[in-house]
Amino acid sequence: MRLNNRAVNALRPVRVEYGFQPHAEASVLISMGATQVLCAVTVEDRVPPFLLGKGQGWITAEYGMLPRATHSRGRREAVSGITGRTHEIQRLIGRSLRMMVDLQQLGEHTLRVDCDVLNADGGTRCASITGAALAVRTAVEEMVQQGKIAMTPKLLPVAAVSVGIVQGEALLDLDYSEDSAAEVDANFVMAGDGRWIEVQSTAEGAPFAPEQFAALANLATAGLQQMFSSLW
Amino acid sequence: MRLNNRAVNALRPVRVEYGFQPHAEASVLISMGATQVLCAVTVEDRVPPFLLGKGQGWITAEYGMLPRATHSRGRREAVSGITGRTHEIQRLIGRSLRMMVDLQQLGEHTLRVDCDVLNADGGTRCASITGAALAVRTAVEEMVQQGKIAMTPKLLPVAAVSVGIVQGEALLDLDYSEDSAAEVDANFVMAGDGRWIEVQSTAEGAPFAPEQFAALANLATAGLQQMFSSLW
Amino acid sequence: MRLNNRAVNALRPVRVEYGFQPHAEASVLISMGATQVLCAVTVEDRVPPFLLGKGQGWITAEYGMLPRATHSRGRREAVSGITGRTHEIQRLIGRSLRMMVDLQQLGEHTLRVDCDVLNADGGTRCASITGAALAVRTAVEEMVQQGKIAMTPKLLPVAAVSVGIVQGEALLDLDYSEDSAAEVDANFVMAGDGRWIEVQSTAEGAPFAPEQFAALANLATAGLQQMFSSLW
Amino acid sequence: MRLNNRAVNALRPVRVEYGFQPHAEASVLISMGATQVLCAVTVEDRVPPFLLGKGQGWITAEYGMLPRATHSRGRREAVSGITGRTHEIQRLIGRSLRMMVDLQQLGEHTLRVDCDVLNADGGTRCASITGAALAVRTAVEEMVQQGKIAMTPKLLPVAAVSVGIVQGEALLDLDYSEDSAAEVDANFVMAGDGRWIEVQSTAEGAPFAPEQFAALANLATAGLQQMFSSLW
Amino acid sequence: MRLNNRAVNALRPVRVEYGFQPHAEASVLISMGATQVLCAVTVEDRVPPFLLGKGQGWITAEYGMLPRATHSRGRREAVSGITGRTHEIQRLIGRSLRMMVDLQQLGEHTLRVDCDVLNADGGTRCASITGAALAVRTAVEEMVQQGKIAMTPKLLPVAAVSVGIVQGEALLDLDYSEDSAAEVDANFVMAGDGRWIEVQSTAEGAPFAPEQFAALANLATAGLQQMFSSLW
Amino acid sequence: MRLNNRAVNALRPVRVEYGFQPHAEASVLISMGATQVLCAVTVEDRVPPFLLGKGQGWITAEYGMLPRATHSRGRREAVSGITGRTHEIQRLIGRSLRMMVDLQQLGEHTLRVDCDVLNADGGTRCASITGAALAVRTAVEEMVQQGKIAMTPKLLPVAAVSVGIVQGEALLDLDYSEDSAAEVDANFVMAGDGRWIEVQSTAEGAPFAPEQFAALANLATAGLQQMFSSLW
Repeated sequence: MRLNNRAVNALRPVRVEYGFQPHAEASVLISMGATQVLCAVTVEDRVPPFLLGKGQGWITAEYGMLPRATHSRGRREAVSGITGRTHEIQRLIGRSLRMMVDLQQLGEHTLRVDCDVLNADGGTRCASITGAALAVRTAVEEMVQQGKIAMTPKLLPVAAVSVGIVQGEALLDLDYSEDSAAEVDANFVMAGDGRWIEVQSTAEGAPFAPEQFAALANLATAGLQQMFSSLW
Repeated sequence: MRLNNRAVNALRPVRVEYGFQPHAEASVLISMGATQVLCAVTVEDRVPPFLLGKGQGWITAEYGMLPRATHSRGRREAVSGITGRTHEIQRLIGRSLRMMVDLQQLGEHTLRVDCDVLNADGGTRCASITGAALAVRTAVEEMVQQGKIAMTPKLLPVAAVSVGIVQGEALLDLDYSEDSAAEVDANFVMAGDGRWIEVQSTAEGAPFAPEQFAALANLATAGLQQMFSSLW
Repeated sequence: MRLNNRAVNALRPVRVEYGFQPHAEASVLISMGATQVLCAVTVEDRVPPFLLGKGQGWITAEYGMLPRATHSRGRREAVSGITGRTHEIQRLIGRSLRMMVDLQQLGEHTLRVDCDVLNADGGTRCASITGAALAVRTAVEEMVQQGKIAMTPKLLPVAAVSVGIVQGEALLDLDYSEDSAAEVDANFVMAGDGRWIEVQSTAEGAPFAPEQFAALANLATAGLQQMFSSLW
Repeated sequence: MRLNNRAVNALRPVRVEYGFQPHAEASVLISMGATQVLCAVTVEDRVPPFLLGKGQGWITAEYGMLPRATHSRGRREAVSGITGRTHEIQRLIGRSLRMMVDLQQLGEHTLRVDCDVLNADGGTRCASITGAALAVRTAVEEMVQQGKIAMTPKLLPVAAVSVGIVQGEALLDLDYSEDSAAEVDANFVMAGDGRWIEVQSTAEGAPFAPEQFAALANLATAGLQQMFSSLW
Repeated sequence: MRLNNRAVNALRPVRVEYGFQPHAEASVLISMGATQVLCAVTVEDRVPPFLLGKGQGWITAEYGMLPRATHSRGRREAVSGITGRTHEIQRLIGRSLRMMVDLQQLGEHTLRVDCDVLNADGGTRCASITGAALAVRTAVEEMVQQGKIAMTPKLLPVAAVSVGIVQGEALLDLDYSEDSAAEVDANFVMAGDGRWIEVQSTAEGAPFAPEQFAALANLATAGLQQMFSSLW
Repeated sequence: MRLNNRAVNALRPVRVEYGFQPHAEASVLISMGATQVLCAVTVEDRVPPFLLGKGQGWITAEYGMLPRATHSRGRREAVSGITGRTHEIQRLIGRSLRMMVDLQQLGEHTLRVDCDVLNADGGTRCASITGAALAVRTAVEEMVQQGKIAMTPKLLPVAAVSVGIVQGEALLDLDYSEDSAAEVDANFVMAGDGRWIEVQSTAEGAPFAPEQFAALANLATAGLQQMFSSLW
């Protein structure tokens, strides 16, 4: 039985609040159930050294978690240094967001996206991607308005969701207690047209059959279509 | 003329939301105008090494700021390391909170307080102290309820406010634009009985006369009395 | 046309040399084409703190690359610190190896696996997993011989291969020049019984259709079956 | 009873030796009782990046302590990293020294002041400020002589002293044993004309009444006037 | 009795394999007995900042050791940071190699030499110097061929060997077990014409007489002459 | 012509002041000409982990330099981290001092020696060793007096001096200007009975003949005998 009698193929309630950080060029506070992530976009009028003179833009992300977003307090990364998990997540977010737009059309601008988890109840990397994509859309629209970009670039909607197998059953959008008990844990990042951007599927307890993977993929696809309908 | 026609001796609106981080033993989201700080208390059933076997407790604080809490993005301290400013602020918060309670009465527990600035518009260290003190009160009351502390300890209310001299005029509770223009910048941490816990007064542009300091002290005292009335 | 007229579904030559580092409890120098990785297992008679007293073992991995394994020299991580890419890879190797054996049967021992890339020509993380799994097998057999483990544990064969889409065509076991040009890049970690341990598929240039993913999965599966036949 | 029958309002003997580090543009070895601090000024013909092209100069400070300046050996900060206490002190020294001179008149030069404690017996931050101010005066006079500055800038004398309440009594210029026992601990940085540059007053054991603060301020003012008479 | 009945004045077998790292401008895998070091040269078309505009080149070295090159696993320096021993060794290698060639004749190029120990059985710093010198020769010859250097510079052959006193007897080319038991431990870096480049002699158990040093010097000289005959 | 008409085989004036850091168990401020090093010994009643339970003591050293000990200001190592040069020097000092006494006779105590250069004019590592050895002698005598060591251990006098070849001529005890111009630079650490503890000889400009080394060794020996006469 899932919390609140949630169906195996049901998403948790998704809420989005724009403008939570008024200093940012765009910001979104996204909630998926009890998970809350604050996504803020900074637009910089320069590109990283490896792109100098190439006439294109860049999108990159950093990820963090407040120490008490979690059940037991985590060490502040300003003290402990950035963990491997954080590195892995922020690289995933950056790759996913760079699929949203033709970087040539961005001009020589960098969109630096900060995803900070205020409360964690499973699925923080997926919520980060989903929220950050909405914030990037807002930021790009703003850049167009300000004339920083000549033509409105085509934006590919992007969202992400976690799925997993818990006690032999495939579940959509795991919360923390489900995630901790999962035998298989997967994240799907999808574009609005149904194509995939990133697939990560990990055996936690035991290897999984290709058929189990297929079931998870179907569950994720349906969930993401629903998210695109409501958010984009 | 101050923003919103605020009087020179008027506080910005103060709002407090309890329980923003449900995993924490106590948490407070405090707003002073557009400044927002999330204060969370973690109760640990152990003390730092230098207190082992002394039968007393400890209160300590860490302070952070989300990269886009500010007008221009600040580097994430997980990347750059902790700055001198952060060290200075978190030491001040910790010292101030340790005045709230006789540490012998805490037993061998540590209250670890995280103050994270979500939005910055001046006075973040003062908002941190004021919000953290409320969160510590909640945490201690909870410890009593759970029987972690035998007797209810006497709690000294604590709050803080910034004052400063801008264009020759003493102002209460500076916002960012006022703080940037201040000739003198001071922070007062006060107890509920009117005694002082910490006074820091700094010449930004030019030295100040003792009489100017006295005027700032009066302004801060009145403002803090008003805060104690509404928050404690 | 691939280098040496290699077929789209052909592996590069795989060679394995045991005992390259005679001080190690087990070591394997694995070559996949021009990629060479040295995998060494250290057996420690203790477990990490989070497993103390649980009566089980642990397997963990570290990954490195000699500065001149690559076309242009990479900075030594002893100087620059560990990059996000390294963190990501060594976490993947560790997770994959932990699927090989019931950790209860290992007793309170840690197998610490070092994977160091001597020469890089694509697929270093997959070569690391494949070589390390063979070294772990040798180390466990040695532990049984020395009486460190009471009963011979059942070992699950594990291997990994990269696949990708280059100029619209699905290719098995990418070399560096193919990997640099790939539109989609995927790594499959598989068990000897055909079940999957980890799947990572990333859009490099544009999102990919689920059918493209299926083609990659088929290619990887066939390649890995061939590797299990020759190496296990 | 204070050491050597010192009166409550008496300074410890102050001695100043110029030129202790002959390579420095200016240097002062200052002793306040058994506390000894070596202050050296380096004049750089450039300014930090944030001042480029503004036509003004800068003064900044670093603070350190030899490991065995103290009763028990302190860890070398080259090993442990800079502590929060050091950050706080060197920021205070820098702010205080920048009040000495109109930075426009310095031209595009940086005065970098190193304060290194050779022996510590209380009041090291105040001795650092007092000694460094004298070294800055010497350095500026030298810059004028060398023609690095067109006109002699007006220099504001600066000095600092600690005061505190020990066993209910207000004392001037605390030594280490007094400082360790103080209920209130304050530092006053004052200009030669009696105006204040920085005031820091901290409750160590219990909050303090505004009247107690006033007594400390009077004691500090009298002590600093005496220091200005003898040193400037 | 030495391993394999080696005479007190006999070198261990020396083997050299060129081109082990094909991406490098030059590389040598050198074995002295069971010690194996991989030396790779990277040629950069720039010089360090302190040589800008001086029209000369530079040679520098970095040294590392794979974690399981040794009997018990060493911590990876990417995790622990570079040790003092590593700093000392890589400075010695760099100094020695810079004696090989008139740096004016190199033009504005940097030769960056990586020495990585794959297996350690004593004498790793000497093997590094000997192998690196051969790799530098190859790299310089290649630079001449590519026209990066106008004229062929004169190259001074360089090699190094360790000697020591074990149980009162002077031995050439210590292996690890001899090195661990040595009362005196010395390294000689010599040029092909018999002149010395670096001499380091260290008392491990007790000071040594100048006559003992002379005996070690003779032993090293004879051994190095033999190495020059076979390798240069 | 040397400064002050110093003869090629003459030492600079050596001065020693005991007790400069009164908190230390022993301290020596040593001057060799314009070079000044403060050496302080801390006696700890414990040994490092690798010596636990072996019933012996340990001597170790740390070395530092005040930023403005030198002609141009050096970066503070608390900011930049410890350089390779510092690592090399402090390892040399520690090794040299451990030759002074049978570590078994020290009991389970650690002598931690801090050598901090206040002014640098060449020969700082040799001055550190010479001064530290005198401080160690004082500390050990004090330990005997306090009953920390049962029997007075036999102490071997230790001192060090630099020699070098400048414009073809062998010079004793180089100052900074000579050291910068030296073609060969050597340091000799010697025991009071004329045996050698450490010899380091480095070609700076060109390799050197064994006969040149012999001349340097003679010069150093005579200089050190003179130092032992005056200091021990």
